[in-house]
Amino acid sequence: MTVRFGLLGAGRIGNVHARAIGSNADARLVAVADAVPASAKAVSAAYGAEVRSIDKILASKDIDAVVICTPTDTHADLIEKFSRAGKAIFCEKPIDLDVARVRKCLEVVAQTKALLMVGFNRRFDPHFMAVRQQISEGAIGKVEQVLITSRDPGPPPGEYITRSGGIFRDMTIHDFDMARFLLGAEPVSVAAEASVLVDKQIGRLGDFDTASVILTTRAGQQAVISNSRRATYGYDQRIEVLGAKGMVAAENQRPVSIEVANAKGFTRPPLHDFFMTRYIAAYANEIAAFIKAVGSNVPGKPDGADGLAALLLADAALKSVKEKRTVMLKEIAG
Amino acid sequence: MTVRFGLLGAGRIGNVHARAIGSNADARLVAVADAVPASAKAVSAAYGAEVRSIDKILASKDIDAVVICTPTDTHADLIEKFSRAGKAIFCEKPIDLDVARVRKCLEVVAQTKALLMVGFNRRFDPHFMAVRQQISEGAIGKVEQVLITSRDPGPPPGEYITRSGGIFRDMTIHDFDMARFLLGAEPVSVAAEASVLVDKQIGRLGDFDTASVILTTRAGQQAVISNSRRATYGYDQRIEVLGAKGMVAAENQRPVSIEVANAKGFTRPPLHDFFMTRYIAAYANEIAAFIKAVGSNVPGKPDGADGLAALLLADAALKSVKEKRTVMLKEIAG
Amino acid sequence: MTVRFGLLGAGRIGNVHARAIGSNADARLVAVADAVPASAKAVSAAYGAEVRSIDKILASKDIDAVVICTPTDTHADLIEKFSRAGKAIFCEKPIDLDVARVRKCLEVVAQTKALLMVGFNRRFDPHFMAVRQQISEGAIGKVEQVLITSRDPGPPPGEYITRSGGIFRDMTIHDFDMARFLLGAEPVSVAAEASVLVDKQIGRLGDFDTASVILTTRAGQQAVISNSRRATYGYDQRIEVLGAKGMVAAENQRPVSIEVANAKGFTRPPLHDFFMTRYIAAYANEIAAFIKAVGSNVPGKPDGADGLAALLLADAALKSVKEKRTVMLKEIAG
Amino acid sequence: MTVRFGLLGAGRIGNVHARAIGSNADARLVAVADAVPASAKAVSAAYGAEVRSIDKILASKDIDAVVICTPTDTHADLIEKFSRAGKAIFCEKPIDLDVARVRKCLEVVAQTKALLMVGFNRRFDPHFMAVRQQISEGAIGKVEQVLITSRDPGPPPGEYITRSGGIFRDMTIHDFDMARFLLGAEPVSVAAEASVLVDKQIGRLGDFDTASVILTTRAGQQAVISNSRRATYGYDQRIEVLGAKGMVAAENQRPVSIEVANAKGFTRPPLHDFFMTRYIAAYANEIAAFIKAVGSNVPGKPDGADGLAALLLADAALKSVKEKRTVMLKEIAG
Repeated sequence: MTVRFGLLGAGRIGNVHARAIGSNADARLVAVADAVPASAKAVSAAYGAEVRSIDKILASKDIDAVVICTPTDTHADLIEKFSRAGKAIFCEKPIDLDVARVRKCLEVVAQTKALLMVGFNRRFDPHFMAVRQQISEGAIGKVEQVLITSRDPGPPPGEYITRSGGIFRDMTIHDFDMARFLLGAEPVSVAAEASVLVDKQIGRLGDFDTASVILTTRAGQQAVISNSRRATYGYDQRIEVLGAKGMVAAENQRPVSIEVANAKGFTRPPLHDFFMTRYIAAYANEIAAFIKAVGSNVPGKPDGADGLAALLLADAALKSVKEKRTVMLKEIAG
Repeated sequence: MTVRFGLLGAGRIGNVHARAIGSNADARLVAVADAVPASAKAVSAAYGAEVRSIDKILASKDIDAVVICTPTDTHADLIEKFSRAGKAIFCEKPIDLDVARVRKCLEVVAQTKALLMVGFNRRFDPHFMAVRQQISEGAIGKVEQVLITSRDPGPPPGEYITRSGGIFRDMTIHDFDMARFLLGAEPVSVAAEASVLVDKQIGRLGDFDTASVILTTRAGQQAVISNSRRATYGYDQRIEVLGAKGMVAAENQRPVSIEVANAKGFTRPPLHDFFMTRYIAAYANEIAAFIKAVGSNVPGKPDGADGLAALLLADAALKSVKEKRTVMLKEIAG
Repeated sequence: MTVRFGLLGAGRIGNVHARAIGSNADARLVAVADAVPASAKAVSAAYGAEVRSIDKILASKDIDAVVICTPTDTHADLIEKFSRAGKAIFCEKPIDLDVARVRKCLEVVAQTKALLMVGFNRRFDPHFMAVRQQISEGAIGKVEQVLITSRDPGPPPGEYITRSGGIFRDMTIHDFDMARFLLGAEPVSVAAEASVLVDKQIGRLGDFDTASVILTTRAGQQAVISNSRRATYGYDQRIEVLGAKGMVAAENQRPVSIEVANAKGFTRPPLHDFFMTRYIAAYANEIAAFIKAVGSNVPGKPDGADGLAALLLADAALKSVKEKRTVMLKEIAG
Repeated sequence: MTVRFGLLGAGRIGNVHARAIGSNADARLVAVADAVPASAKAVSAAYGAEVRSIDKILASKDIDAVVICTPTDTHADLIEKFSRAGKAIFCEKPIDLDVARVRKCLEVVAQTKALLMVGFNRRFDPHFMAVRQQISEGAIGKVEQVLITSRDPGPPPGEYITRSGGIFRDMTIHDFDMARFLLGAEPVSVAAEASVLVDKQIGRLGDFDTASVILTTRAGQQAVISNSRRATYGYDQRIEVLGAKGMVAAENQRPVSIEVANAKGFTRPPLHDFFMTRYIAAYANEIAAFIKAVGSNVPGKPDGADGLAALLLADAALKSVKEKRTVMLKEIAG
C-alpha cells in the first residue's frame, strides 16, 4: 500500500518531511498547503504534488495522512479536525504549550480513534535507537542513571523565545522524552535549576538559557539533563545510560570525521551546526515509522500520550525552578 | 539544465547509481538497459524510466549521458560507441584490464572529445575529500608519506577472482588512485610483496589475498598500501598523510557509533560490512560531480588518464612481486 | 632543603604516601607510627625510616612535617596536637565528619599558624590539572556548567559505610571539592537526589549508593555530579566544563590502552579498578606540592577551609535529599 | 635476593636506568662509572652509590650486574670483559654497528655463559606487551600483517647521524625488533625505500630521514614499517597487528589526555615529545625483567641473538634501498 500524504506547512521542517516522504517507496506526497503560496509551490514542484488549501486537503479522498508542520498554536485545532476527517496524523511537537488544551485535543483523538504520532525525532536517531536496543536486550542490566547532554550551537532570536513556551517546553522537552524512552519507567519527581548565562535578553523575556534537571522514578532511577543555548563547538547531543551490569553511550556525531595533527595538537572538526543535518537519518526513519504504522493500521509511537507526558515534565521543571524544590509529577498531572 | 540519463547495467552497482540519479534534482533517469529483463524492469519502475536496449539508448536523442555498469570486458567497447554518439560517459572502473586496450579506447575518447569520468568513488567520500582539502590548504605542508589501509571483510568467490584481473587490478587499484590523489605527484616506482594467507583457492587461481606496496615519487615521497581480503571486524578503510608540518587522517566509519561498557571492557560495534553502505555518500557525491561536469561541459575528474595511471601501477606492482625488485613506472608505461 | 617526614598510619593510603615521599628528592621519611607494629615496621624497612610512637614523633626535633593517615575520628585531634607542636601537616580527608569539630580544629590551626594541607588528591591529577589550567588561561571563557561523573567499581563493605559519614561526606566530597576547583566560584545552593539501587544493605544502614547533585553559584553557574557505588567497567572518573567560549573535558584513564577488533566489534580493556592505580600520579604530585609548600613556607592548597567547604556541601546535599528542596549553603554554614 | 648493580655511563639513558634500579625493591645501585666525573658523582649521590672506575667495577665482588650505557663503540668490548668477569650484563642497543663484531662478541658471551640482555625497551611498554599478550592468547588468530609507525619529533644533530650507523641501524632497528616480537616468525626478506625529505644535511651525510620497509616471513606474513625523522605532533609510536580472526592495536600515548572544544573543533594536546617520557614505564619494566632474570638465573630476553637479528634486518634494508630489490636475509646472514 502506498500512503498518500498531505503536507500542512512547507517551511523548514516541512521541507525535511517532504523529502523523507519523497524518497520513501511506500509513500507519495499528493498535496501541500502553506500560508505562503511560494513555499507551497516550491515543495509541490519538487515532489510532483499539488498545492491545495488545508480545508481542501481535509476533504480530499486521495489523502490518507497528513504531516502537520504549521505554527504551534494551530496544532491542536488541526489534529482535532483531521482526526474527525479520519486521516492519520503526524504532528510536529508540541501538540500545544498548554496542558489542558493538549488533554482536550487527545480526547478527540481517542474518540475518533485517529492514528496520531508526535514528532520526537530523536527516538529515531540510529545511534540512540541502538542505545535503546542494547538496554532492551539486557546488555547493561536494569537502568539506574541516564545522562543527557543537549546543547544548541547558539540561542534563538528573541521573537522565537516569546512563542516557544520557554526552554523546558521548547528544548528540554526533547530530553524529557528521551529520558522516558531510556529509563523504561515514568519519572515521579523533578528537581531543576535554571539560569541566564548566555543571553540577557532571554532573561528579560522571562526565560532561561542554561538548565540542569534531575528526574527520579518511583524506584529511584535518576535521569540528569544538561542544557545550554550555547555550544561554540556545535550541536552537542549525547546520551549515556548506566545500568546494574554496565553502561551504554552514544557520542556526538560529526559531519566530517578527520583529524589534523600538528605542534598544537590533534584537532577534529566541530560537530554539526544544525539539528537538521545532525538528525537527517532520524527524520527519515521517523516518517518511515509513521508510514509503516499507517500502512499496517497499528498505533504510532511516540503518540499523544508521550507528547503530554513530556509537557507535564516541562511544567514540573519550571515549577521546581520557581519554588526551589523537588516537584512531584502528580502535583502537575492532577 | 536537467541531465537525462541512460543506465547500462542494472545490477548491484547499477542500482546504486540509479538511486543517486533519482535523488538528484538536476538529473533524470530516462532509460535502463540490462541483459536480464527483470533487472532492467525493476530499476525502471522504481525511478519512472523506460526499459531500452543499449543500441536504442545509443540512438536516443533524449539521453545526454550514460552510466556504464555492465561487465568489465564490455566497458571499452561501450565507451568507444557512446563517445562516438556524443554522449557523456560515466564508466565504472576499470576501463579494461589490459593497458593496450585502455589506451586504444582513450584515443577514441580524445578524438571524439567525449566527456569521460571513471568511477573511483573513494575520491568523493566526504572524509577523504576533507583530508584532500586539508592538504590543498597547506595544513600539513608538503606531503611526505601516505598510509592507506584497505581491507575487505572477506574474500570474493573464486569465480570473481578469475575475472577480476587479480588483487592489484581489482582491489588495490582503488588505493593506487587514492595514493595519486593524496600524494599530489606521480609515483615513479613500485615495490610490492604479496601472499596467500586467507584463502588457498585464491592462490590456486594464481592470485594473492594479502599485499603490501610502497610507491615512491621522483621527490622521494612514499605511499604505503596495506591490503587484505579478510577483516573480521568489517570493511577497513583508513588513510593517513604525513607532511612537513603535520599529519591528517581519516578514521574508519561505523554504521552505529555507540559504546557498551562492562567488566570485559568498552566495545563499539563492527565497521560497515559492505562497500556500498560504507561509501553511500561517496556514490551520491560522485554522480553529482558527473552531473555538474555534464551540465557545465567541463572535463570530469577522475578521467580516463586516471584510470590508465592506476592500471599501470597495478601492473607494476604485479611485476615487482614476480621479479622481487623495485619496478620503475617507465618500464611499464613505455 | 630536605623535608623530614613522620608518617602517622601505615595502612593502604599510608603506603601510597610513603612511596611518594621516598621517591621525592627533596624529602625523607624519618619515622613511621602505626597501631599495628607489623605495618609500621614494613614501611619503615622499605624506606629506611624508624618506627616511633605518635607521641614520640610529636616530640621529635628531626621531623618537620607529618602525614596523617590514621582513622578519620583521630584526624582533628592529631591536627591540633601537631599544629601546636609546630609541625607542617598533610591530613587525609576528611578533617572530621562533624562541621563543628572541623571548625574548632581549624581555629587551632589558625592560632598556631600551622601549615595544613588536606588530601583532595584529584586536584593533582595531571589531566584534571590540565583542565583547570585551560580554564585559567581563558580557553573556554567564563565557566557556565561543570559535569562530574564519579563512580566506584563496587560498593564498600557495610562496616565501612557505617563509619564513612554517608555517600555525600565520603564519596561525593571529592566531587564537591572538584566542583569548587573548577567553577572558580562558591556554590550557594544544592539540590540533590539519592537512591539505593546497588546494595540494599547500604539502604538499611541509612545511606545511599546512587546520587545526582546540582550545585549553583550566585551567578547561576551550575555543577552537576553523577555518583554511583557500582560501575562494572571500572573506576569512572570524568570531568567536563562548558564555558562561554568552549568546552574542556578529561576522559577516563586506562591502565592499558589497546583495542582488539573482531566480528563482535572493537573492544578496549576496562578502566582502572582501584583509586590508587588511577590516581598514582596525583598522589605523587600532591605530596610534591606539600613538600614545596613546607620548603618555601607558603600556605598549601587545598587547605582546611577547602576541607570545611566540601563538608558543608555534603551536609547541604543530605539535607536537600531529606527535605526534597534546594538548600542554601548559608542555612548550613550559618 | 638483592641484585647489586654497577652503572657504566651516567648520561641521559644512564640516569633513566639508575632511577629504575633505585626504585626497585630487589635491586641496589652500588657503583657508577663515567668518563665525566661530575656525571658519575651526580648519579651516585642521588642513589647512595659510589663512584668507581670501570676497571674497579669489573673487579668488584659486591657487584652482580652491570648496565652498559657508554658510547656504542665501547659496547662489544665491555660485554666481553664483563662476561669474562662473570657479571650479568644489560647493554643498551646496539651491541655494535658491525655484524662481524657482534658475532665475535656473542661468541664470548656463549663461551662464558654470561647473562646478556639487550635494551630493546619497547618490548616492555605496557601497551605493546598487552598487544603481544593478545596475540599469544589467540585473540586475533594467526598473525598476517604487522603495521608499525615510528616517527621522531625531529631529526637528530648531524654529529649524531655520523655516529649512528644510519637510520636503519639507529632508528628502524627498534621497529625490526618489534616486528620480530609481534610476527612470531623470522622475516626472510626485506624490501625498503628511503628518502631525504626532512633535512638535506642528513642526505649529505649519506643517510636517510624517511623510510618505508616491508618484511616478509617464509609463510608470507608481512610487516610494514613507516619511519620519519620528523613529526610535528610528537613522538609517534603505534603498532597494529592483523590476524586471521581479528586485529589488535596500540594507539599513541599522551602525557595529558584532555580535549578542548571550540568553534575551530576538538583539540587534544600533542603526544610526548621525547622517548624517555613516552617509554618511562617501559624502562622500569625492562630493568625489572633483567633483575628478575639475574635473580632467578634464567636467560634474559631480548638477548644478544635478538640484537644480532635486528642488525641483520637493518643491513638488509640498506642493501635493498641501494640495489632497488628485495633482499633475502640469508644473503646477509651468510
